[in-house]
Amino acid sequence: MPFRQPVNIDRPTEPLGEDGIDAIHNGAMDILENIGIQFMNPEALKILRDFGCTVDGENVRMGRDMVMEMVGKAPSEFTITPRNPARKITLGGNHMAFVNVSSPPNMWDLERGKRPGDMEGFRDFMKLTQYFNCIHVAGGYPVEPVDVHASVRHLDCLFEKLTLTDKVVHAYSLGKERVEDVMEMVRIAAGLTHDEFNETPRMYTNINSVSPLKHDFPMLDGTIRLARRGQPIVVTPFTLAGAMAPVTMAGAVTLSLAEGLAAIVLIQIIRAGCPCLIGTFTSNVDMKSGAPAFGTPEYIRATQMTGQMARFYGLPMRSSGVCAANVPDGQAMWETSNSLWAAVQSGTNLVYHAAGWLEGGLIASPEKFVMDCEVLQHIQRYFAPSITATTPDDIAIDAIREVGHAPGANFFAIDHTQDRYETAFYAPFASDWRNYEAWELDGGVWTAERAHKIYKDIINTFEPPKMEMTIKEELGEYVAKRKSEGGAPTDF
Amino acid sequence: MPFRQPVNIDRPTEPLGEDGIDAIHNGAMDILENIGIQFMNPEALKILRDFGCTVDGENVRMGRDMVMEMVGKAPSEFTITPRNPARKITLGGNHMAFVNVSSPPNMWDLERGKRPGDMEGFRDFMKLTQYFNCIHVAGGYPVEPVDVHASVRHLDCLFEKLTLTDKVVHAYSLGKERVEDVMEMVRIAAGLTHDEFNETPRMYTNINSVSPLKHDFPMLDGTIRLARRGQPIVVTPFTLAGAMAPVTMAGAVTLSLAEGLAAIVLIQIIRAGCPCLIGTFTSNVDMKSGAPAFGTPEYIRATQMTGQMARFYGLPMRSSGVCAANVPDGQAMWETSNSLWAAVQSGTNLVYHAAGWLEGGLIASPEKFVMDCEVLQHIQRYFAPSITATTPDDIAIDAIREVGHAPGANFFAIDHTQDRYETAFYAPFASDWRNYEAWELDGGVWTAERAHKIYKDIINTFEPPKMEMTIKEELGEYVAKRKSEGGAPTDF
Repeated sequence: MPFRQPVNIDRPTEPLGEDGIDAIHNGAMDILENIGIQFMNPEALKILRDFGCTVDGENVRMGRDMVMEMVGKAPSEFTITPRNPARKITLGGNHMAFVNVSSPPNMWDLERGKRPGDMEGFRDFMKLTQYFNCIHVAGGYPVEPVDVHASVRHLDCLFEKLTLTDKVVHAYSLGKERVEDVMEMVRIAAGLTHDEFNETPRMYTNINSVSPLKHDFPMLDGTIRLARRGQPIVVTPFTLAGAMAPVTMAGAVTLSLAEGLAAIVLIQIIRAGCPCLIGTFTSNVDMKSGAPAFGTPEYIRATQMTGQMARFYGLPMRSSGVCAANVPDGQAMWETSNSLWAAVQSGTNLVYHAAGWLEGGLIASPEKFVMDCEVLQHIQRYFAPSITATTPDDIAIDAIREVGHAPGANFFAIDHTQDRYETAFYAPFASDWRNYEAWELDGGVWTAERAHKIYKDIINTFEPPKMEMTIKEELGEYVAKRKSEGGAPTDF
Repeated sequence: MPFRQPVNIDRPTEPLGEDGIDAIHNGAMDILENIGIQFMNPEALKILRDFGCTVDGENVRMGRDMVMEMVGKAPSEFTITPRNPARKITLGGNHMAFVNVSSPPNMWDLERGKRPGDMEGFRDFMKLTQYFNCIHVAGGYPVEPVDVHASVRHLDCLFEKLTLTDKVVHAYSLGKERVEDVMEMVRIAAGLTHDEFNETPRMYTNINSVSPLKHDFPMLDGTIRLARRGQPIVVTPFTLAGAMAPVTMAGAVTLSLAEGLAAIVLIQIIRAGCPCLIGTFTSNVDMKSGAPAFGTPEYIRATQMTGQMARFYGLPMRSSGVCAANVPDGQAMWETSNSLWAAVQSGTNLVYHAAGWLEGGLIASPEKFVMDCEVLQHIQRYFAPSITATTPDDIAIDAIREVGHAPGANFFAIDHTQDRYETAFYAPFASDWRNYEAWELDGGVWTAERAHKIYKDIINTFEPPKMEMTIKEELGEYVAKRKSEGGAPTDF
């Protein structure tokens, strides 16, 4: 499949009526006006106090009129342009973009089982991210390479990411050095001046609140730095119903929105019009063990409800492709299918963790990555208007008349079929559609094993995207200089 | 989960606009008026000719006004009452019912691999069908027991089905003896007089056209017999785009509708108001091999389009839970999830093959049955209005205020959570939500293996539903008598 963003042509699934939307909105406003959100960052507190919010210690309360006015300044649609302008993405409206799995500490594959992340694994996932055109964004670290010291890890990771892929990248908001280094490396990789970098979105960050009701220091620090340079910020509370949020899904969505909107207000105060996404990570826990559950019926509905609220606030939206399964098996695929189709039904614009996620985000798996990309390609193909076209050629009465009633009559050989068969249907790369006997003769290989082979083939034949040698050298020099300076402090 | 039919509260996904609906409708009417459908049954031809259709040999053409008038006589909603009235189902409106896998010639399980169906396997699937309350109908034979001679197979199968389950059953339209025997056995099992049986739906049949454009003798024979007794008939053309139907999905849907509506007209001529469902089995082939594909993007859209047309004609609808995978792995679950959620999105009322189907319908698998039931329970729970309720108790501002901002604050212990946690979330039976280490310590069991154990446990502890001894004896005597008469001819 070519690199192309899917356009979601379906009407969203909307479980809330007008009164439901009002109830959640009023709940979120009630939290912001009367309970308040804790901003654990002096600079953020000063900005909010100066703008007229009620600041009591670290607690910030804000009136609904001001909230709605400031949220209204965030654009409903914007673009991010990476070093290869052909990989530019649009976020908002009906556009969707899919992001690789981000941030698991561990890897798992069929050959080696579960083990801590390392740089070799990081590179493999970057190659998969670049290879699959259904992945539009090289988001966070697909696995944390713990064999590289934390002080310089971001430098090595971004160097690899910017040379192995040419897609939109992301900075973790984990201290000023990391954020500033990533912005600088993205600028160098794209061959931009500082002014050119500042004038349009080139990368983004994602921040998570500390639910309930708190934004921590480094996330706010990163937010302030990106907002000042007009770079997009995804605000994603992690409200697990029954744990960090109310056990009721509407309550968990309400809390999530209050936390998210509070950060978006801060961003718009810093730079009106700075692009933002409202993120959702609302799911439920297993009430027997307290373990997080994903891709559940409750997760689907929470995502759909958040979609309605994102449209109410005029904000683009992020959700995720998630599961609780430990290996790429049946459970992994029904949970992931549920969450990816929930992204479609909710009108999500940016789908995090869309390929490769296992164990509630603690494991990244290359086999799962390959299998998820098959589902993502399904979704992309599903949006092709040609499938539901109803021109006379599509209704095909002449073809039906031509084939007629004769015993054994079929459509295989007629021109109407032959003219179209090469592009008529989605052709899978990981599914095996042969009958059982042919499949068994060829080894009887289950999906996860097929995906393992596909993963190995991709890695073995991978060719990185072009980058001018002078730019690569400049990037390398920047990394070397920053390493010699000690990188980033690790005691933040 | 208790036995209860899900009510689909979502607005359907509708890819067709008004013009698309018109184009497909006009195409179907064009086929019926100008190309005609072949009815390979003299009795059906006589009925249609007498009613004013244009009959030319076996080809029957009918005017659109008459078609629309007769289709309008079919009820948009009706019930079927099995021997246990508590298992009554409603078909039509927003009601959904799920049917076990029907008709594969082979079985597959993790222990024994693929093998021809037998009566032991048949009984196992009947036990699974009865055990799972998310399965509402004991449809066709979940596997064909080829160790029982074809002449008496239907007698043994129906005896097992009617004693091992108390749910709605089905008769194959494969010759008059089979159809009449099933009707009689259903009547006996429910303790009904002939008049009582005739006055309301007690069972049903499903007929498939021979696409393109034909209905064969035995299917029409069964149709006529059931229609005369007011028993419901599901008409399901099998229009594989690019093989037995146009390569364009709208064309395949148009052909399917024409074939289906033609049979429904016949039924309504025989008995106006006889319950009918319009079935869809429109999918695409793999254009490389000609093999049928299922759960594809094209399949989803065809099902959604058929849903729009079923509502246009005011008919309840049947679709299926299908896949092309050979084993219950990742591919099986993404394909099956796609088709089951397509049933939801299309407004399907009766979902055939909802649990246990593999290899494009050539294999029934108990592990797949168990895994599919987990997905069906997801769907059933997904429709619970409580998930998206927005009363003040759901928005939970008081709970959010109570938990507040303190470090480590959470919702686990508060009353709002404790009062609700037992029923707040769906609790899975086949998913494993433990972390990797706990899962690995317990054997590292993948989903299919877990499902195998669940299947064995269900079979080993199964208790059949109650049936009065006199009725069981009467059923057994009927079977013995009919066997002594030779059962049904096998050369039809």
